[in-house]
Amino acid sequence: MENSVGIVTTEYAHFDAELRLESGRVLGPLTLAYETYGTLNAARSNAILVAHAWTGNAHAAGYHSTQDRKPGWWDDMIGPGKVLDTDRYYVICSNVIGSCFGSTGPTSENPRTGKPYRLNFPVLMVRDMVRAQQLLVDRLGIDQLHCVIGGSMGAMQALEWGIHFPERTRSIIPIAGAVSNSPMAIALNAMARQAIFNDPLWKKGNYRPEHPPADGLALARAIGHISFLSDTSMQLKFGRRFSVRDGLFDFFGQYEVERYLEYNGRNFVDRFDTNSFLYLAKALDLYDAGWNFDRLEDALKQVICPSLWFAFSSDWLYPPYLTEEAVTILQRLGRPTTYHLIESDYGHDSFLVEAEKFTHYIVDFLAELD
Amino acid sequence: MENSVGIVTTEYAHFDAELRLESGRVLGPLTLAYETYGTLNAARSNAILVAHAWTGNAHAAGYHSTQDRKPGWWDDMIGPGKVLDTDRYYVICSNVIGSCFGSTGPTSENPRTGKPYRLNFPVLMVRDMVRAQQLLVDRLGIDQLHCVIGGSMGAMQALEWGIHFPERTRSIIPIAGAVSNSPMAIALNAMARQAIFNDPLWKKGNYRPEHPPADGLALARAIGHISFLSDTSMQLKFGRRFSVRDGLFDFFGQYEVERYLEYNGRNFVDRFDTNSFLYLAKALDLYDAGWNFDRLEDALKQVICPSLWFAFSSDWLYPPYLTEEAVTILQRLGRPTTYHLIESDYGHDSFLVEAEKFTHYIVDFLAELD
Repeated sequence: MENSVGIVTTEYAHFDAELRLESGRVLGPLTLAYETYGTLNAARSNAILVAHAWTGNAHAAGYHSTQDRKPGWWDDMIGPGKVLDTDRYYVICSNVIGSCFGSTGPTSENPRTGKPYRLNFPVLMVRDMVRAQQLLVDRLGIDQLHCVIGGSMGAMQALEWGIHFPERTRSIIPIAGAVSNSPMAIALNAMARQAIFNDPLWKKGNYRPEHPPADGLALARAIGHISFLSDTSMQLKFGRRFSVRDGLFDFFGQYEVERYLEYNGRNFVDRFDTNSFLYLAKALDLYDAGWNFDRLEDALKQVICPSLWFAFSSDWLYPPYLTEEAVTILQRLGRPTTYHLIESDYGHDSFLVEAEKFTHYIVDFLAELD
Repeated sequence: MENSVGIVTTEYAHFDAELRLESGRVLGPLTLAYETYGTLNAARSNAILVAHAWTGNAHAAGYHSTQDRKPGWWDDMIGPGKVLDTDRYYVICSNVIGSCFGSTGPTSENPRTGKPYRLNFPVLMVRDMVRAQQLLVDRLGIDQLHCVIGGSMGAMQALEWGIHFPERTRSIIPIAGAVSNSPMAIALNAMARQAIFNDPLWKKGNYRPEHPPADGLALARAIGHISFLSDTSMQLKFGRRFSVRDGLFDFFGQYEVERYLEYNGRNFVDRFDTNSFLYLAKALDLYDAGWNFDRLEDALKQVICPSLWFAFSSDWLYPPYLTEEAVTILQRLGRPTTYHLIESDYGHDSFLVEAEKFTHYIVDFLAELD
């Protein structure tokens, strides 16, 4: 456990407040699952909020027990002496609302019925996730976050913090994000949705938890998985190798790439709730930083803090132009804005796979803020 | 019907011969559906074979009746005075084996059982399709085809003609093809397959023709459809417009791109057989021009005729490098090879949508052959 934050525990913050959502509906009471690493300083000025992606959770670093073999999902980044240095910073990661890892979501009990929400859960926007996080930041007694950082859906949250809570946000670092979900991304999510809707076990969201629509969810995940990879990364990883277990002329025979996607899709079923998957896909599709502003520029005008942006050359889910749109406007507005287009072959996943290509920029950016 | 080949009829050629397939299995007797336009000259030297794509058919030009409102699928290209000028050329298009438009495929009667083949149909390769076409060309009394031309799976057929029947092929024009199916293309086909396998109505291919696995096939088609488009073409065509019929915060609400894909997927169910779809997807996945040769170069060495190749800048299903691989080798071998990379925003579909960008090269190429 060298350079690790060590054994950590997920905590749960409960809020009686009702959150007014962008849809006009209200959600409450609320629970937010979260973890923290490092120590909040006396000035309460060293907190960094890490925002997770679609299927992420609050467990970003460390281990849950001494038997735990796999650390949190961004352990490479968070720890003593690491990029988000827990000797200096107080790092917070909380599970988004709508998810299934402890924060209020479709599997939670609907207080009006005493039963799980399921499809009675309200449709969320990323903006709503951030509003919920703000309650947690209040609870922790933090006026201003030193930084909000995240990749993919986490990048969208970082930007929303910058737009909607400018006075509480000292800096933001959106990585592999998008100023809005493209029709291509929507189309891919639509395929994932349809794969689930087609599964007779889905039952319009009323599946029994022990009998989820496994075929549908596994396929949905595999479709998403393809969009996180790239043509080149698949050529490198799989090429045209045929599964050794199958005959080339077997109707059901599989190439290695097929077997890999199926295996990972199946695994996903054991760790993610189907309705949560659908609600978060919807939130991604609805994502548009300019929503409810006259123009995107009016939204970005709200961002007054320094921002550091990364996009990846082979990312075809959130191609660089969807980051550059925001960067161009912010620079025109004269906001302190830094952007790096990182050359990488690993598609959208580059931000997780090739962190060493860009994390030094983050270290420098945070150092300059101090 | 100006510039049209007019009223045409699909014809059916029956062959008692058994075709020995790449898999080692045999297929026969065989039927091939085909259409011809123009007149075979006395020297029998003016025949052009048009090879269709995945879901295409033999009806490439003209109308089937005076009431027919939609002409054949490549009517823009084929007719008097058009690129494939029926005043000069005798144009043949035949439905590939494995398909469901009149040629022998999974819906045909298996002579050994008297019932439809369904999954007893043998797994095919593109090479097998071309072998079957050769029987038809024999039957029509043609020793050498003036040209074999096609897009997508049609491009693969054109190349296979050049490799396996060099003495019968005066020239080839592969358009938006690939020297082999990439792992990305295989992965997308795997998603389509799984969508069908997940549909309880599929019944391992034993669905009742009047109750096909419509949900699965519609989703499979929609997945394919996405891969024919591009990020840019979707931005241009749909942007982030939400369907006017839905509320933005309706869980089942759809963006226009979703509605479009669903609508087209549903339409497809009425015109295509599910098992045929699966067999042709498999043939695409198995496609590798170098298969059963020591190296790709050994396969391409067989091509002695002039070849004209097109790839499209925004095609991410068969990206240009999958054409350039063949072109580079052929040029190194000193074969008369011409290649054009066409700038287009319409993805794989560019070859159908923006024909005007490249057809003049075809006119020149054919003129120089004469």
